[in-house]
Amino acid sequence: MNIEMIADAAKRAQGHIRLTPLLSSPFLDDIAGRRVFVKAECLQHTGSFKARGGWSAVSALSPEQRAKGVIAYSSGNHAQGVARAAREHGIPAVIIMPADAPVMKIENTKALGAEVVTYDRATEDRDAIGTRMASERGLTLIKPFDNPYVIAGQGTCGLEIAAQAAEVGIDTADVLVCCGGGGLTSGIALALEARAPGLRPRPVEPEGFDDVARSLATGTIQRNQRTTGSLCDAIVTPQPGDMTFPIMAGLCGPGLTVSDDQALHAMALAFSRLKLVLEPGGAVALAAALFRPADVTGDAVIAVASGGNVDAAVFAMALDRFA
Amino acid sequence: MNIEMIADAAKRAQGHIRLTPLLSSPFLDDIAGRRVFVKAECLQHTGSFKARGGWSAVSALSPEQRAKGVIAYSSGNHAQGVARAAREHGIPAVIIMPADAPVMKIENTKALGAEVVTYDRATEDRDAIGTRMASERGLTLIKPFDNPYVIAGQGTCGLEIAAQAAEVGIDTADVLVCCGGGGLTSGIALALEARAPGLRPRPVEPEGFDDVARSLATGTIQRNQRTTGSLCDAIVTPQPGDMTFPIMAGLCGPGLTVSDDQALHAMALAFSRLKLVLEPGGAVALAAALFRPADVTGDAVIAVASGGNVDAAVFAMALDRFA
Repeated sequence: MNIEMIADAAKRAQGHIRLTPLLSSPFLDDIAGRRVFVKAECLQHTGSFKARGGWSAVSALSPEQRAKGVIAYSSGNHAQGVARAAREHGIPAVIIMPADAPVMKIENTKALGAEVVTYDRATEDRDAIGTRMASERGLTLIKPFDNPYVIAGQGTCGLEIAAQAAEVGIDTADVLVCCGGGGLTSGIALALEARAPGLRPRPVEPEGFDDVARSLATGTIQRNQRTTGSLCDAIVTPQPGDMTFPIMAGLCGPGLTVSDDQALHAMALAFSRLKLVLEPGGAVALAAALFRPADVTGDAVIAVASGGNVDAAVFAMALDRFA
Repeated sequence: MNIEMIADAAKRAQGHIRLTPLLSSPFLDDIAGRRVFVKAECLQHTGSFKARGGWSAVSALSPEQRAKGVIAYSSGNHAQGVARAAREHGIPAVIIMPADAPVMKIENTKALGAEVVTYDRATEDRDAIGTRMASERGLTLIKPFDNPYVIAGQGTCGLEIAAQAAEVGIDTADVLVCCGGGGLTSGIALALEARAPGLRPRPVEPEGFDDVARSLATGTIQRNQRTTGSLCDAIVTPQPGDMTFPIMAGLCGPGLTVSDDQALHAMALAFSRLKLVLEPGGAVALAAALFRPADVTGDAVIAVASGGNVDAAVFAMALDRFA
């Protein structure tokens, strides 16, 4: 993994991936006690940064691989990112989703042209299903974070952050990143190392699901005790990736955590102050910027708002409680 | 009024007004039956396009005018636009607001540094109060739409639309604009005439408050029968402006109207498909693009989403009914 792979991914993405805006509000600055900039990845195609990694991986396939198609496991954002990229490239995509995934997410993935295969989380093994289908049909598996092209694609967000921070005169700041398996965090970290070394990437996770923070603190990969029970389900993974962890360990500052309530509160403030729709897992970085000011350094902070694919009921709850 | 004034306003705005993104979603295209592009002015500073006109007017003041300050009447978006521009220029601003305006809007305007003077809508005349204060203090009045610098400022949105439409390969399309007094519509119309003559501006209003559509149809200024009772209150004005109407009459296609329900439905779709927060009055153009397809021409349509300053309760109602 290196900056050239990210620059190449950015070239392949031109005209297909949005340059998302870097937003701010004096009201958020007042809460945080420093300038707050929000990288609005919820405005990316498919509603999350995952469109970047999906595009990068699909656009890097050989003609032979394209002819056969791709496969991915995902209950949500990665599914839509891969499905969109496959459709735009005109190649088949199979997405393996839990049968109990929200109907809306399954419908969206189908509407993006993918063949959705559901499995029973209790009795079936998605890896086994995926491996079998991939080998039967010759499909290329696109993992959600432990894939160099996916990491490079997510890194294109970091290239934009480096350029946009320079435009607003920020050369030193913490860059808080909503972190699941670490694809976005490690991609951004590589981009910033090369293009804006004064910007320090830091992962943000839900309290109780801080495998990455603990892994960074101990220097070895730590697992979460459980992987259900957080509103921020989109960024809860069992452990950091084998590819992403060494990158994060080399380049990231300490991890931060926020509560589900703080994520909901950040969603309400993104609604009222930025006019953005964030999902809980996409709001944890902003929550840390706003509600963990003592744990952040510098006169300014950049928070990546990584996604906005949230059910209306959860969004209404955030408004009801905090707006 | 001419394109040079708009180009000058754009120069003065550089670094102070956001270039807002032009967004799209295949799901919205499916509903409309043509490609739909949304100019996300809700992401503008202060949550609406009004920051453009406010900036343009304040930045064009003479040093003598700046020293004394500005005054504006507004219950909402124009207030915040003028207040922000005045604060950033370091000059005093007085905003005259109805005493029964939403507390949040009054608080926001004060937080932006303005002196807020409230009046009783039933018994007091805001024009008389404003004229008296302006003359006593030498304040410059910034009207919400019948001011050439304000129109030029709103026109900078049209310059961006012309450039962004070219980027996505659109040279012929209706450009639907949420329309109150006509400042945004006429500014965009002037910009498009000069920079993208294949793009046709068309005002969109709430049903029952279609003064501009009727004025365009008859060729003379028509008034609304009433100015209360619409959820889209931010864009309900008694009649088109004396300056804006001739511009619109010369350059705009026929007006469109949508119901409050259609505006709420468009808000719910902007939530789920674009991750944008729109206010009802800021959603009428998108509503027309989605729900009045027979009244729109061409393979693509551009809808200006003019603002996102909406109470949580109204937003939750839109989600509850349509998401």
